[in-house]
Amino acid sequence: MDIDAANATAVGRMMESRPILRGVAPAREAIPGMASNLLLHAGPPIEWARMSGPLRGAVVGALLFEGLAKDEAGATKMVERGEVRFEPCHHHHAVGPMAGVISPSMAVYVLEDVTHERKTFSGLNEGYGKVLRYGAFSPEVLQRLRWMNDTLGPMIGEALASGDGLDVRAAIAEALHMADEGHNRNKAGSLLFLKFLAPRIARLKAGSEAKAEVLQFIGDNALSILNPVMAACKAMTEAGHGVEGSTVVTTMARNGTDFGIRVSGLGDAWFTAPAAVPDGLYFPGFSAADANPDIGDSAITETAGIGGFAMATAPAIVTFVGGTPRDAVNATLEMYEITVAEHKSFTLPPLDFRGTPTGIDIRKVVELGIAPRINTGIAHRLPGVGQVGAGLVRPPMAIFEQALLAFAERYGLQ
Amino acid sequence: MDIDAANATAVGRMMESRPILRGVAPAREAIPGMASNLLLHAGPPIEWARMSGPLRGAVVGALLFEGLAKDEAGATKMVERGEVRFEPCHHHHAVGPMAGVISPSMAVYVLEDVTHERKTFSGLNEGYGKVLRYGAFSPEVLQRLRWMNDTLGPMIGEALASGDGLDVRAAIAEALHMADEGHNRNKAGSLLFLKFLAPRIARLKAGSEAKAEVLQFIGDNALSILNPVMAACKAMTEAGHGVEGSTVVTTMARNGTDFGIRVSGLGDAWFTAPAAVPDGLYFPGFSAADANPDIGDSAITETAGIGGFAMATAPAIVTFVGGTPRDAVNATLEMYEITVAEHKSFTLPPLDFRGTPTGIDIRKVVELGIAPRINTGIAHRLPGVGQVGAGLVRPPMAIFEQALLAFAERYGLQ
Repeated sequence: MDIDAANATAVGRMMESRPILRGVAPAREAIPGMASNLLLHAGPPIEWARMSGPLRGAVVGALLFEGLAKDEAGATKMVERGEVRFEPCHHHHAVGPMAGVISPSMAVYVLEDVTHERKTFSGLNEGYGKVLRYGAFSPEVLQRLRWMNDTLGPMIGEALASGDGLDVRAAIAEALHMADEGHNRNKAGSLLFLKFLAPRIARLKAGSEAKAEVLQFIGDNALSILNPVMAACKAMTEAGHGVEGSTVVTTMARNGTDFGIRVSGLGDAWFTAPAAVPDGLYFPGFSAADANPDIGDSAITETAGIGGFAMATAPAIVTFVGGTPRDAVNATLEMYEITVAEHKSFTLPPLDFRGTPTGIDIRKVVELGIAPRINTGIAHRLPGVGQVGAGLVRPPMAIFEQALLAFAERYGLQ
Repeated sequence: MDIDAANATAVGRMMESRPILRGVAPAREAIPGMASNLLLHAGPPIEWARMSGPLRGAVVGALLFEGLAKDEAGATKMVERGEVRFEPCHHHHAVGPMAGVISPSMAVYVLEDVTHERKTFSGLNEGYGKVLRYGAFSPEVLQRLRWMNDTLGPMIGEALASGDGLDVRAAIAEALHMADEGHNRNKAGSLLFLKFLAPRIARLKAGSEAKAEVLQFIGDNALSILNPVMAACKAMTEAGHGVEGSTVVTTMARNGTDFGIRVSGLGDAWFTAPAAVPDGLYFPGFSAADANPDIGDSAITETAGIGGFAMATAPAIVTFVGGTPRDAVNATLEMYEITVAEHKSFTLPPLDFRGTPTGIDIRKVVELGIAPRINTGIAHRLPGVGQVGAGLVRPPMAIFEQALLAFAERYGLQ
């Protein structure tokens, strides 16, 4: 069996994927398999009893947002009575940052991979501070979500409908030349998103004040494009999934309790282990004692070859995640050790325009003892609080070992 | 005499300058000393007989734009009859990229240095391709200028009037962390400008289509913020000018024929010598044989500590100006050799957030034989053509030697 050839096929498909942001629609209309009693969440499958604080907080918030519960106690009772089903976003071609909760009424981005004719989805980004994805569910959080659903989403959707959509792969490539790494730093990408949307939004029928508020929100939120970027990375990694004999990782995701990966040649199986607490910088008043373990589907960016893997191009990010610019370069250099390709579309000017390290090979991870590096936000461990910092984290090595054993078994290797 | 102390004062004032973009107004109303028969131009003083092709082309275009001439021949005759006066932008607190021609009717940006209570000015940026500042004056060039004067300028002006203005120093600082160097690469800065303007423009009374066109133009032009940045640098360098005993350069400017500098402790005197042809990359179909010598006031950016001096933060620029990312880092490192300070507000993430090299010392330039590095566009040497490339250039060493001799004479040094 030629594993290297299989990996080249898998990563080739990843790089050929060209996801276009086409529109915005309610999750229940857009996402296959969405149901009225279903909440999608980040990471591998998990039941309520094992859910971490921020994921529980986001579940409560989503039930309040849907009008299915009136308060935290009511939401909790609904869940405990078994009236709510939970499934990973990843089981529905979707991804969500941090808690990643998507409920049926929520507006989601719809992307189409025009190379492989596959749709992927993500929610709309709420910005910083007290937000659902970090487990907050106060009235201001819900009010913002309603405005996003009623005003922001429809307006972006209408603006997108007036043209051919946004080529997210091209936007990522451009942002990487503007010192974004595409995961924790999306300042430039979000401004490119604003540049794309601004004239289109100006042309809509909506009132001037509503348009101004939408443009202000998109411009002020340096993570505006994160969710489309994640859904684009989801399209790329799905394209690379399912290649017989490939050891390339096609999913890395965390639910706040477990870190899980999936591998191209190993079908739908998740390999999971307890998630670690990120090592990073904390906002004033918080410390590592407040931190929840690693959470979110956003590691899809590293899985697709950007984020922590593209740190070399984003030296300014160290003010947010810690370390030095030299550490950022070294992070990227280290990731070349465990990947199978250099990206054709995503290049790094500080490394003489070398392609980003792309396609994590579980064999190399285990052999070298080098786990992938992931840039991430840090959530408070209790529901209802929110973000407390940002930093770096690595998946537990055990899941790569499990996956490699499963691979050997599946393919009859010794 | 303590030259070092004088230089510290000069560069301190430069760095304390905080220019705010306040509005847009016709040059004749905004710029002190503007007159109906006066054209301002880039660089040191020059008469028609010695003007290069692109500056002549811009003069013709400005006279057509003003309705003072009907065609190139008519414009040329007007000038030859002595009906037009020429003065440097720099003599009127103004700066202009490339030919830098400002005529009385043209809309100009108005900046206010709130630290030193001084106003500076620059025209509006026309974007790429066939544009007046590169000496083109075809109907499309004039039509765009009219649209800029009638629609773009007033709308930006109205948007600015609705608030406290844009802190251009802060925008430069932010853009330097997004891989702009602030002279030839203003992609991020221009998007920050768009971010500032978009909601404010959305709120104006103007029609949706006009607003959309303005937002599209600002977003598509990766040099949108160049002219405000130049006027901000003009404010900074004016603040550093006039310090008794200082050898810091406060003006570097080219008119397409001569390169001129002025020095803080040497009053209004220009030191000039023939401008060199930049070394760079040419657009398809053009070569160095088409190139005009160095032209434009945009070297005010390097004079203030950005542009070629900040190349280390902008590795992607080498695709535009030539060289390698390592050359870009070395360019910045070299400039520390000839400057007196590291900028307090402008920092470079790839160099561990070191401040940009700021305040060129004519003593160091002459002693070390290292002339400043300038990023620049390259104009065709004939009037009416436009931009043919971009690259790097250095001022002639002779002007620093002249200035140093004048300094020794002025201050009675041997």
